Amino acid sequence: MESIKNRRTIRKYKQQDISADLLNELLEESFRASTMGNMQLYSVVVTRDAEMKAKLAPAHFNQPMVTSAPVVLTFCADFNRFSKWCRQRKAEPGYNNFISFLNAATDALLVTQNFCTLAEENGLGICFLGTTIYNPDQIIEILGLPEQVIPVATITVGYPDEHPEQPDRLPLRGIVHEERYHDYSPEMIDDIYAYKESLPENKHFVEINHTETLAQIFTNIRYKKSDNDYMSAGLKRVLIQQGFLDE
Amino acid sequence: MESIKNRRTIRKYKQQDISADLLNELLEESFRASTMGNMQLYSVVVTRDAEMKAKLAPAHFNQPMVTSAPVVLTFCADFNRFSKWCRQRKAEPGYNNFISFLNAATDALLVTQNFCTLAEENGLGICFLGTTIYNPDQIIEILGLPEQVIPVATITVGYPDEHPEQPDRLPLRGIVHEERYHDYSPEMIDDIYAYKESLPENKHFVEINHTETLAQIFTNIRYKKSDNDYMSAGLKRVLIQQGFLDE
Repeated sequence: MESIKNRRTIRKYKQQDISADLLNELLEESFRASTMGNMQLYSVVVTRDAEMKAKLAPAHFNQPMVTSAPVVLTFCADFNRFSKWCRQRKAEPGYNNFISFLNAATDALLVTQNFCTLAEENGLGICFLGTTIYNPDQIIEILGLPEQVIPVATITVGYPDEHPEQPDRLPLRGIVHEERYHDYSPEMIDDIYAYKESLPENKHFVEINHTETLAQIFTNIRYKKSDNDYMSAGLKRVLIQQGFLDE
Repeated sequence: MESIKNRRTIRKYKQQDISADLLNELLEESFRASTMGNMQLYSVVVTRDAEMKAKLAPAHFNQPMVTSAPVVLTFCADFNRFSKWCRQRKAEPGYNNFISFLNAATDALLVTQNFCTLAEENGLGICFLGTTIYNPDQIIEILGLPEQVIPVATITVGYPDEHPEQPDRLPLRGIVHEERYHDYSPEMIDDIYAYKESLPENKHFVEINHTETLAQIFTNIRYKKSDNDYMSAGLKRVLIQQGFLDE
């Protein structure tokens, strides 16, 4: 699986379109992922229309890939279809609760990763937009998602027009635990993060951001507590609105 | 990607062990998945010890794969390691909120699916245990997961000792939406679920469960509202306990 080993996020795409046949084939194969009780608790919205991309862009903080990629895919946790089937078959669905959201989100995310692997195996490049759960209310409005449907991942897809460096990863020993979770000592933290902190690009990053440490870029600039608290409140409102959480 | 196209869940494994080298190689490659801001918000706990498997089994409703598979992997959403790094670098982490749980869970689930694909490409078989988020409190206790760590997926892995039929999937048109979500009419629901309902094994399933419809097996027996509500309350308690949600 060289494509997984060598993967890199692609943010620049060729003009070349992705044929509907190829896209559908990859999506259909991705749906082979494990799914809770074979309920397939997901939907995928395909965006190709320039006007729709322009509408979606602000929800993703105007990251340029949303408008420049030939295809944008929004993967949604979806209990709407299954619940409609239940009601039509004299069965009362009981999926208006938090665990059902997480079950459906899990289904949707497994399919998302499967799709990414298949796309990359077929010469496409992808960028995973983590912004999807930051502004789910906007995406729900734009794509017309009904109750019991929440977007959980967005992927921009296209033929790569760049070949960026692979980003660093933490050493295996920093992530894998044998038999029990061995909590991290200060020495282990130093060891695990040493390589990341030693990289020239990260040192440069600290310099231009005028912080003392790399970690401060995350806590003070990129992923701030105030933003996280604000978005958590928004996400909870969306879970209530879409019928997965009580007030 | 024949392995994704032809995948089936494997619940029976050969006695043959999985070498530590192979397992580590697959895990390391799986960590190439997209991750929020390259924070790698996950940990994996490897269970090989028979005693530990026996302890985990009840949390997974004693599904036999937990004790019979050579390896059980618990993939966890983990903001503990990153937060410890922040504190050690004069940065105050702000990840004790709901969005941070979902960010970390997303990271962990992408890695989980990546691992499954790689395992299958290497001749292994896997079973995804959705039960992980039903009893996270028990798993937290058994594996010693600290605050800011929550298990989100468990995979049993081994060399296949069975070759089951591939399960059915809904037709593509039932899942993919062009440009906007087109909500399902009663006719579309009939169409989408027709094949599933026509399968002899599902008709048999209805017969032995003495229900009127297939959907009733889901709502009245397998995934009941009372169970979902109960597990949702438990999951919320765990999110509070592990520091991702306010009371």
